[in-house]
Amino acid sequence: MSAAGAVREDRLWQRHVDMAKLGGTPRGGVNRQALSPEDAAARNLLMSWAKARGFSISTDAIGNLFVRREGSDPKALPVMSGSHMDSQPTGGRFDGMYGVLAAFEALEALEDAGVRTKRPVMAVAWTNEEGSRFQPGAMGSAVFAGQNKLDEMLAVKDWKGVVLKDALAETLKTAPAPMRDGKPGFPLDGYVEAHIEQGPRLENEKKTIGVVTAIQGSRRYIVETVGEEAHAGTTPRAARKDAFAAALRIAQAMYEATTDKDDTLRFTIGRVDVGPGSPNTVPGKTSFTIDMRHPADAELDAYEKKLREIVATKAAPCPATIERVMVVPPTDFAPVVIDLVRAKTNALGFSNMDMPSGAGHDAMHIASLCPTGMIFVPCERGISHNEIENATASDLAAGARVLVEVLTELANR
Amino acid sequence: MSAAGAVREDRLWQRHVDMAKLGGTPRGGVNRQALSPEDAAARNLLMSWAKARGFSISTDAIGNLFVRREGSDPKALPVMSGSHMDSQPTGGRFDGMYGVLAAFEALEALEDAGVRTKRPVMAVAWTNEEGSRFQPGAMGSAVFAGQNKLDEMLAVKDWKGVVLKDALAETLKTAPAPMRDGKPGFPLDGYVEAHIEQGPRLENEKKTIGVVTAIQGSRRYIVETVGEEAHAGTTPRAARKDAFAAALRIAQAMYEATTDKDDTLRFTIGRVDVGPGSPNTVPGKTSFTIDMRHPADAELDAYEKKLREIVATKAAPCPATIERVMVVPPTDFAPVVIDLVRAKTNALGFSNMDMPSGAGHDAMHIASLCPTGMIFVPCERGISHNEIENATASDLAAGARVLVEVLTELANR
Repeated sequence: MSAAGAVREDRLWQRHVDMAKLGGTPRGGVNRQALSPEDAAARNLLMSWAKARGFSISTDAIGNLFVRREGSDPKALPVMSGSHMDSQPTGGRFDGMYGVLAAFEALEALEDAGVRTKRPVMAVAWTNEEGSRFQPGAMGSAVFAGQNKLDEMLAVKDWKGVVLKDALAETLKTAPAPMRDGKPGFPLDGYVEAHIEQGPRLENEKKTIGVVTAIQGSRRYIVETVGEEAHAGTTPRAARKDAFAAALRIAQAMYEATTDKDDTLRFTIGRVDVGPGSPNTVPGKTSFTIDMRHPADAELDAYEKKLREIVATKAAPCPATIERVMVVPPTDFAPVVIDLVRAKTNALGFSNMDMPSGAGHDAMHIASLCPTGMIFVPCERGISHNEIENATASDLAAGARVLVEVLTELANR
Repeated sequence: MSAAGAVREDRLWQRHVDMAKLGGTPRGGVNRQALSPEDAAARNLLMSWAKARGFSISTDAIGNLFVRREGSDPKALPVMSGSHMDSQPTGGRFDGMYGVLAAFEALEALEDAGVRTKRPVMAVAWTNEEGSRFQPGAMGSAVFAGQNKLDEMLAVKDWKGVVLKDALAETLKTAPAPMRDGKPGFPLDGYVEAHIEQGPRLENEKKTIGVVTAIQGSRRYIVETVGEEAHAGTTPRAARKDAFAAALRIAQAMYEATTDKDDTLRFTIGRVDVGPGSPNTVPGKTSFTIDMRHPADAELDAYEKKLREIVATKAAPCPATIERVMVVPPTDFAPVVIDLVRAKTNALGFSNMDMPSGAGHDAMHIASLCPTGMIFVPCERGISHNEIENATASDLAAGARVLVEVLTELANR
């Protein structure tokens, strides 16, 4: 029996059902925020399953939870897979949790199939990916990768004033696991994260597996136009400096300039503020946010240039500015992992497509440590961060089958 | 000496200076809201000037304050001029007050020139035109004209819960005047209101006098588009239903459709709400207000039809609605008064232009009672409802000269 053949769709689904009870909401979603009692309950459940299979357990100073199946070479660096178990306040049952359970299913499948790997294979549940309660998100993986400082993260407070350090201590008291020595982070030979797509592309194109090539870069901007407040009844058009009309010309030109043929660029105006906001006063000020994402940094540079040109040329007679307030560069995954995911998917006969990830994931931090990749499975209508988030048992199992094959190959390199 | 020649620019200006001290603000404007102690002080000051000239004084049940110079025919209906002495919370020194002081200057000029008129000439300070403290505005003139019910207006409360009836009683206690018999309102033979333009047209076209032909009609609408909230990073453009992008297409088309050649239509989008307002979420809902004004109702009908067509055709794939939430029909002034204002302005050698009023005024209610018209003078940069509101002594005097000539003619009909 192959490891992929040992993946059990019903078991994987039932584990999702069992986990969904921890923080389950009346509308079928979950509220299992980082380091909450629900998070601790999820940790205990995962550990109980791990213990039943004889896997070893450990945690680190930021609360990342590791499950380990030994390999044949005690000196070999491990390969790892996983995601997160915390959720949005009104989150779904699959975001993050699928990556943890698929990794655990891979360990079980290896065990059931009697596959010996050279390297240890580890499953991980990273602490606080969502960042709903404690900010920033993807905290556990960032601390593991040395990109956020442990001390600073432990001092973060939630909106009620609870310090993360205390919430973590409480969580580890409720869900105790052996503490690893030293600071978080240890060498890895490879990392693969399975995740629901959180977008509609796989469903729309009727593909089962997304071979994730990169996490796209994202940039955020604020555009502001300044006009002159004036009486809506008495001020002729020619005498107006209408800050909203100027913002609208800019936004319209930006929508047009960002309409790329292959629909890869993501351009969103999400927040718009028009002041003073009185129906009978010509707006004196307007600001709006831009969220722009693309897998290629050079493309983002080129589009940013276009945005700046539009602000410079379309705003008259109103002065206008555009300020870049956030840059997250793209993460390109390792060709060796991308090729392996694609090859194993094809070998298993699953339809697939290459795609970048639209959202950020823990894999984006781990990619700085070792060859890294991701596997996407479809989610219903692309809806995520929502209690109605859904996925099929068959697609989840397909992703786990690809995952265990990829991990086996990486673990025998 | 003619009555126009008896208008004294320095006296008229000084009266503005004196009045501006009552509720004067550090930035040079006034805060003299309706039925406040500052309003009472202005009433007392006006009455002291009236008494000094031997004019008679009266008030009515809504607190309108009348100053009367008798005519030669005791049975003849009076002609009247005036405006209001209440201000916006951060108002200017001329809005309303100029119309009251120009009317009073007219009475004084008639007196100084020894002009006998057949009819009585009255100056009036209408109660609560601004509607800043008690709503609706233009209250005193609406009650006088029978368009608002006295009892309902007396029951109105300000935002602190003070009932108008009590504020009025307090005002009339502080600034007592003989109460007229019966309900507010009595027959008039003509009404002329002088006012600063509150827009930039006279200044831009270098005219001293605006011959006001009408108060334009105004309509208000709310446009709403409904989209689907989606992740800014994962949702391709083709899969989006972006409520703001739809609203923007609608708004852009509306700006274009309302760009009339002669710049008469006033079209304003003043308030815009985009939900949920998160930078990384595609907007699921957008609404905006439209304030649209024009002197001709038929034009407003035609433009409204265009707006409805745009909402019906430009919103896809988002459902969109447009709701009309307010209609104020245009007020056409009496040709006899319009022609008289133009003729007297020309006779006095002042540059002038015909124009509609962009804003509402007390004259809009009095026009239902008798032949009515208005005289505009320029204000600096068209700025009003603002502490920096300004006008020149010379322009104010020019308006008063025209006014006294028009009133004399009307009072001898």
